[in-house]
Amino acid sequence: FATMAPSSSPVHLLFRQLFEKESSTYTYLLADLAHPDKPAVLVDPVDQTVDRDLNLVKQLGLKLIYAMNTHVHADHITGTGLIKKQMPNVRSLISRASCAKADIFVDPGEKIHVGNLLLEVRPTPGHTAGCVTYVTGEGEGQPYPRMAFTGDALLIRGCGRTDFQGGDAHELYKSVHTQIFSLPRETLLYPAHDYKGQTVTTVGEEILHNPRLSKDEESFNTIMENLGLAYPKMFDVAVPANMVCGIQDSHA
Amino acid sequence: FATMAPSSSPVHLLFRQLFEKESSTYTYLLADLAHPDKPAVLVDPVDQTVDRDLNLVKQLGLKLIYAMNTHVHADHITGTGLIKKQMPNVRSLISRASCAKADIFVDPGEKIHVGNLLLEVRPTPGHTAGCVTYVTGEGEGQPYPRMAFTGDALLIRGCGRTDFQGGDAHELYKSVHTQIFSLPRETLLYPAHDYKGQTVTTVGEEILHNPRLSKDEESFNTIMENLGLAYPKMFDVAVPANMVCGIQDSHA
Ligand SMILES: [Fe+2]
Ligand SMILES: [Fe+2]
Repeated sequence: FATMAPSSSPVHLLFRQLFEKESSTYTYLLADLAHPDKPAVLVDPVDQTVDRDLNLVKQLGLKLIYAMNTHVHADHITGTGLIKKQMPNVRSLISRASCAKADIFVDPGEKIHVGNLLLEVRPTPGHTAGCVTYVTGEGEGQPYPRMAFTGDALLIRGCGRTDFQGGDAHELYKSVHTQIFSLPRETLLYPAHDYKGQTVTTVGEEILHNPRLSKDEESFNTIMENLGLAYPKMFDVAVPANMVCGIQDSHA
Repeated sequence: FATMAPSSSPVHLLFRQLFEKESSTYTYLLADLAHPDKPAVLVDPVDQTVDRDLNLVKQLGLKLIYAMNTHVHADHITGTGLIKKQMPNVRSLISRASCAKADIFVDPGEKIHVGNLLLEVRPTPGHTAGCVTYVTGEGEGQPYPRMAFTGDALLIRGCGRTDFQGGDAHELYKSVHTQIFSLPRETLLYPAHDYKGQTVTTVGEEILHNPRLSKDEESFNTIMENLGLAYPKMFDVAVPANMVCGIQDSHA
């Protein structure tokens, strides 16, 4: 390893999918075990399960560097604030387009380095204006198949709602088709939520079987306009808290 | 592919972990996509989620060959009976030591073939007398790291109770240490349940961090004797049904 350039060193990926029952949210832990620091990130951590997640990070001997979100969630409070409280060296990360507070803002096309693991930032607005999908790097040394953390842009056989937070069905359709369905068919898609106990899907599967996004755009718009969903019960608490990236408890 | 002996053809594994919320049970779908039939198995299917699972099998174009259980469950009714009703060519499979009814009985050391994917039957009694762990094959063409489906013998940072169904703490301790902890450290362990939203662990992690099984046997026995667990609410319904491997509804 000593003679290899860091950028071409193969990633030894540690990957964990973690579920929070109340909001049916998936948090993802990714780390590069081949790097001497074992740097790690948590994607979409939930306040309720921060202790579980940080305990796992500690047991595995990882160095958590970022607590990152795919978007400003409306259904749960991000764990970011609690994580930073317990581990002040961890930095919060979110898309600049989210307009939320954070230590680090990322822009479309940017690559986040977690040791030698790359996470590419793909803009996938439509559920919220600032939604992004994080996609593992391409090619040698990066995990194969590639993995995409789609937030609520694409759910397994579904997608996030588009009726608030700058949501826009037209935008969502374009985002998924240009930024997610354009990935190789075997790409593993990991959503921020699942309500039926499913854990993962692939690009190929969703292109064929997503009951909303496999349709033409007009049909998609009609579906999204007629969902008739209730106002989310956590909305008024979660959105303001998450706009400050979980720093909601800094005045406590 | 035509010129390769089937036994050395590399497996193209399709793997899905599926969760049933009420009993916090994990069902696993495994298939060999490299085999022309795309043969598949469901491990520990639950009656509540049979439609979801069979729909996925259908969408993915798989040929389900076995509905198999790690043991006679006491907390949910196996989906095996409902699966066989909907797909009469699927055969139920369980360990001979379970004393349950099934189409196929497997014995310790036996290898189950799913296309070119091998599943080795390891006896892991102690939670019940007939518990087995299914472990993917070793070496070339088989998935790396190996994967073990431990049922309730080993749970993530825990283990199944040992106070009924022929349970025996001494046996469970021996089973886990000789049959599971003897696997390579990177082996992925997939349990039948998790109650905290965790999805997977490894041999190396459990050897170090399992709060029960990392202890010496005497401490383990003391822990298991003092769990003070309630009588499981599904017990009287689930066990008789599962002893006939879900054929409970054949007289309906
Ligand atoms: Fe959302
Ligand atoms: Fe059990």
